[in-house]
Amino acid sequence: MRSFEVKNRTSTDDIKCLRLITAIKTPYLPDGRFDIEAYDGLVNAQIENGVEGIIVGGTTGEGQLMTWDEHIMLIGHTVNCFGGKIKVVGNTGSNSTREAIRGSEQGFAVGMHAALHINPYYGKTSMDGLVSHFDGVLSMGPTIIYNVPSRSGQDIPPRVIQSLAHNSNLAGVKECVGNDRIKQYTDDGIVVWSGNDDQCHDARWGYGATGVISVTSNLVPGLMRELMFGRENSTLNSKVMPLVDWLFQEPNPIGLNTALAQLGVVRPVFRLPYVPLPVEKRIEFVNLVKGIGREHFVGEKDVQVLDDDDFILVGRY
Amino acid sequence: MRSFEVKNRTSTDDIKCLRLITAIKTPYLPDGRFDIEAYDGLVNAQIENGVEGIIVGGTTGEGQLMTWDEHIMLIGHTVNCFGGKIKVVGNTGSNSTREAIRGSEQGFAVGMHAALHINPYYGKTSMDGLVSHFDGVLSMGPTIIYNVPSRSGQDIPPRVIQSLAHNSNLAGVKECVGNDRIKQYTDDGIVVWSGNDDQCHDARWGYGATGVISVTSNLVPGLMRELMFGRENSTLNSKVMPLVDWLFQEPNPIGLNTALAQLGVVRPVFRLPYVPLPVEKRIEFVNLVKGIGREHFVGEKDVQVLDDDDFILVGRY
Amino acid sequence: MRSFEVKNRTSTDDIKCLRLITAIKTPYLPDGRFDIEAYDGLVNAQIENGVEGIIVGGTTGEGQLMTWDEHIMLIGHTVNCFGGKIKVVGNTGSNSTREAIRGSEQGFAVGMHAALHINPYYGKTSMDGLVSHFDGVLSMGPTIIYNVPSRSGQDIPPRVIQSLAHNSNLAGVKECVGNDRIKQYTDDGIVVWSGNDDQCHDARWGYGATGVISVTSNLVPGLMRELMFGRENSTLNSKVMPLVDWLFQEPNPIGLNTALAQLGVVRPVFRLPYVPLPVEKRIEFVNLVKGIGREHFVGEKDVQVLDDDDFILVGRY
Amino acid sequence: MRSFEVKNRTSTDDIKCLRLITAIKTPYLPDGRFDIEAYDGLVNAQIENGVEGIIVGGTTGEGQLMTWDEHIMLIGHTVNCFGGKIKVVGNTGSNSTREAIRGSEQGFAVGMHAALHINPYYGKTSMDGLVSHFDGVLSMGPTIIYNVPSRSGQDIPPRVIQSLAHNSNLAGVKECVGNDRIKQYTDDGIVVWSGNDDQCHDARWGYGATGVISVTSNLVPGLMRELMFGRENSTLNSKVMPLVDWLFQEPNPIGLNTALAQLGVVRPVFRLPYVPLPVEKRIEFVNLVKGIGREHFVGEKDVQVLDDDDFILVGRY
Repeated sequence: MRSFEVKNRTSTDDIKCLRLITAIKTPYLPDGRFDIEAYDGLVNAQIENGVEGIIVGGTTGEGQLMTWDEHIMLIGHTVNCFGGKIKVVGNTGSNSTREAIRGSEQGFAVGMHAALHINPYYGKTSMDGLVSHFDGVLSMGPTIIYNVPSRSGQDIPPRVIQSLAHNSNLAGVKECVGNDRIKQYTDDGIVVWSGNDDQCHDARWGYGATGVISVTSNLVPGLMRELMFGRENSTLNSKVMPLVDWLFQEPNPIGLNTALAQLGVVRPVFRLPYVPLPVEKRIEFVNLVKGIGREHFVGEKDVQVLDDDDFILVGRY
Repeated sequence: MRSFEVKNRTSTDDIKCLRLITAIKTPYLPDGRFDIEAYDGLVNAQIENGVEGIIVGGTTGEGQLMTWDEHIMLIGHTVNCFGGKIKVVGNTGSNSTREAIRGSEQGFAVGMHAALHINPYYGKTSMDGLVSHFDGVLSMGPTIIYNVPSRSGQDIPPRVIQSLAHNSNLAGVKECVGNDRIKQYTDDGIVVWSGNDDQCHDARWGYGATGVISVTSNLVPGLMRELMFGRENSTLNSKVMPLVDWLFQEPNPIGLNTALAQLGVVRPVFRLPYVPLPVEKRIEFVNLVKGIGREHFVGEKDVQVLDDDDFILVGRY
Repeated sequence: MRSFEVKNRTSTDDIKCLRLITAIKTPYLPDGRFDIEAYDGLVNAQIENGVEGIIVGGTTGEGQLMTWDEHIMLIGHTVNCFGGKIKVVGNTGSNSTREAIRGSEQGFAVGMHAALHINPYYGKTSMDGLVSHFDGVLSMGPTIIYNVPSRSGQDIPPRVIQSLAHNSNLAGVKECVGNDRIKQYTDDGIVVWSGNDDQCHDARWGYGATGVISVTSNLVPGLMRELMFGRENSTLNSKVMPLVDWLFQEPNPIGLNTALAQLGVVRPVFRLPYVPLPVEKRIEFVNLVKGIGREHFVGEKDVQVLDDDDFILVGRY
Repeated sequence: MRSFEVKNRTSTDDIKCLRLITAIKTPYLPDGRFDIEAYDGLVNAQIENGVEGIIVGGTTGEGQLMTWDEHIMLIGHTVNCFGGKIKVVGNTGSNSTREAIRGSEQGFAVGMHAALHINPYYGKTSMDGLVSHFDGVLSMGPTIIYNVPSRSGQDIPPRVIQSLAHNSNLAGVKECVGNDRIKQYTDDGIVVWSGNDDQCHDARWGYGATGVISVTSNLVPGLMRELMFGRENSTLNSKVMPLVDWLFQEPNPIGLNTALAQLGVVRPVFRLPYVPLPVEKRIEFVNLVKGIGREHFVGEKDVQVLDDDDFILVGRY
């Protein structure tokens, strides 16, 4: 089901060289549908601050809470409006091979530049099954494989990645296991992005990582750009670290969702099972913003502490 | 759920002036999935021959046999690959208001330039219900309303169209009731496209129609272009008429599907409930092509009579 | 995908002998979801008044506004709670052969006793296509074919029915074309139900129809029972006729939905594109109820004229 | 959206007392659809051997590879055909609260006796989010909460269970963390089923577990019945343990799928990402069956070693 039209041709090399990719937040309207206007604002802020690629519908973007038609629509919309300015990586992975195949086929059809593929979380499978799963999707286009055992319940061991490395569509690995694993890959010439914002500075400058697929860059894209593009910069990294620690005290994207709402760039709407951080953490965030400098954060409004009543939690949508 | 990004802004006036829009065929692989490569070929042939717009997933394109994710994907793909060269009109209508709203929202999100909306066929509704239905979707973007009582079981009377005509998103009407109805609208300044290939020449030159939304132009786009753009031309119209008669002897797109397969531009795969025309009609088609001239038809291969065994009919896909 | 478990075995003969089948209304909660509690009440009223079967998700039950999972769920629920007391006929037909196959497979899996199959409305097809369509579903279990050209846009001619009549799963035809057509079938030994409440008395007593698949019986099941089971009874028929006329002044189920809301047995919630009848018609209904006798109608509450503001119209649900 | 019909009323106490529940395998046809006839055979074997309940579409039954309409259909089918003989527990949990709500609503509507709910795997959430998630579904009917951090990536700590324990719909916990955790709950009067076949004998006889939700009982239901109902029986437990070890050497249900195919009770069809165990393990299984005794296993055919070519792996279905 492939198209050979020119606009669909993105080379794997175009993906391999990206240093800063943001796992973009999906904002919602009060009834739980996508807030596309707010989304456009978020993406524009990324582009303006030098971010080179975005993951659409990642765990950060709550792809796991989307129907597939919502998901493909969001990818198609992003390609249509922003595909000339930023690389669009669709998180079309799934723990169901059928869904991963269909989602990726549709994502590439609507023009995404690359796919992000997780191993089959929750259901899990054998190493042979893992290879079959990835083989089923790698033929479609540039692909980043995502390893995050703390979510998936199962590590993708290096021997699986190495057995897939010959495939010219494999752009690289988003790796969350740590910098030693990253070094193991980069020594072998495999492109890696750190999946941990707290380790990405060192990953980039000390372990050979090409860059980061970041959550924090939703908030401070310019600072993350400097961390990845400038030079080794422990001072800047230390400045950002308290924000990173704050963001990940609860499973992502709880912190991010809370933060963006308080920055006034998204409505304070949560799709369950996500709920906002409690008020004492929300106060902490405002202080963090003031410490780092409001001007480094996305949005124009004053940062504020939202009340519990300001938040809308939606279970049916 | 609207986007205000520049690429999404298509004016209703950009739609109103289109003279030749093709209700494009959707080709299939042997397992019933879309054959995107063949589809791209069909669209390119349209562009090269001066067609200005296409309806994606119309009744001709068998939108009624698609899942919504397939449908939105095809719209998104078309926008992404061809949206700069041809106007993309998504048939996001439905007899369910919910589906019409959701489909149109998604279609505009992935960049379609206009929506085609049918009245609620089969289920039908009252005139008040009809107005509520169209009101639910007209706010989203440029819209063509489609009236085809022989399919829908219910005429959209002029008073309904007139009550919607103040809406700046209403581009016009695809009208199949006949040229007198068309004149009634064009006298009132409402843009109309003929939905009947056998009447479109007269509609254009004698009844004020802006142009046609055509099935026949899938086969002979250049001739249809000349019919709509050149000048009143009964000779050419008479030359094309036997092909039109052949195409519509059974419910569309049965004839079109058979023809395109025999021209070698799509695989001979039918999604049920459509089945090919019988062999004697298939022989007739080859003779028609020879009479009109193979060079006027899409594709490069020799036209051939396919055997019954060449066709693949799929019920599960 | 068949099951041979005993509980799934319903013989076609068990369907052929049903005289009174109600195309049951689907009631909604204010957010547009099914109101299962109200639905159970409607079904119980049917059972108590001697109705022998129900069509779940017919055009009356607004199957065309359901997602397939809603539809199959409603069939499964009905079988589970009422399948021992009343025959459950799922309207698993579609204009897409794929959907008709899948829906019927699932409907029989959850225990429906028979399927109702429409010809491919709106998309239409050739006679050969029609036979292929029905052949694709007839193997699954007892089946009623539904002919209503005023909705489908295409008559199912007797020769198609006759070519399918040898199939032991064909229970019969729900025929809306008129009593002459009915006689044509019953003379041939084909079971027919009238699909027109205004003709069903004559169909039953004068043209050989087995019975009726009725809308009116949602309201006055006992009277319809008497019409079908008692004896030829023009007096009773004349008494019911004004109600029938009132019900069908706008496309069904607009009248029925309005009536049941005013009888207090369902909430006044409409899924678009359906909207209530205007107030003057709503007043007429109250008078009709008083004329015929409230005791013949379902429900216990006083009939009342609802205000415009009492109705909730939902487009997203 | 609740029904108060008698057949839907299952008390939580009816669930709490079940000692042996099987997480039933879902068998497939060569095209990947459900093999309902084989499924019926599996369920009947469970009933005949004294199993009291089944989990439909659990991780063992590959609910994660089903569409929701398939899943609800399978629950509805099971209720319809077997609901009088065995308790039907639908795994209507999800990491999306929306899906968990909708799936459970539909599952109860088609008559399931209880729901199994996992915490939001992969996406994860905070403890507050966890409570909100479970609160969203507990109102619907009897519920078992499922804790398996090795799959979900996140432990459900006892304080969350305790905060839900007052809800009369909470039947208990399927716990995989180990027998100390089980004891902690049973000391508090909370019903627990062991989710680990290798620990279930001790859990039942030494730690207060009510019973087991078992994978192994798909193969040897009679032996598992004896382990749970008879008396403390280390001899029998030791006899079964090599089979259990064999089953779980790769992520479940890989071993189970391989075993049932070799026993001739299901077709050797795997939905990816699952693939069969390699031939040397398949030989081991045949020896295990001979050691334990073919008569204790489900099915009537001789156990055999299947060839690699016998297996069908499906990625699109």
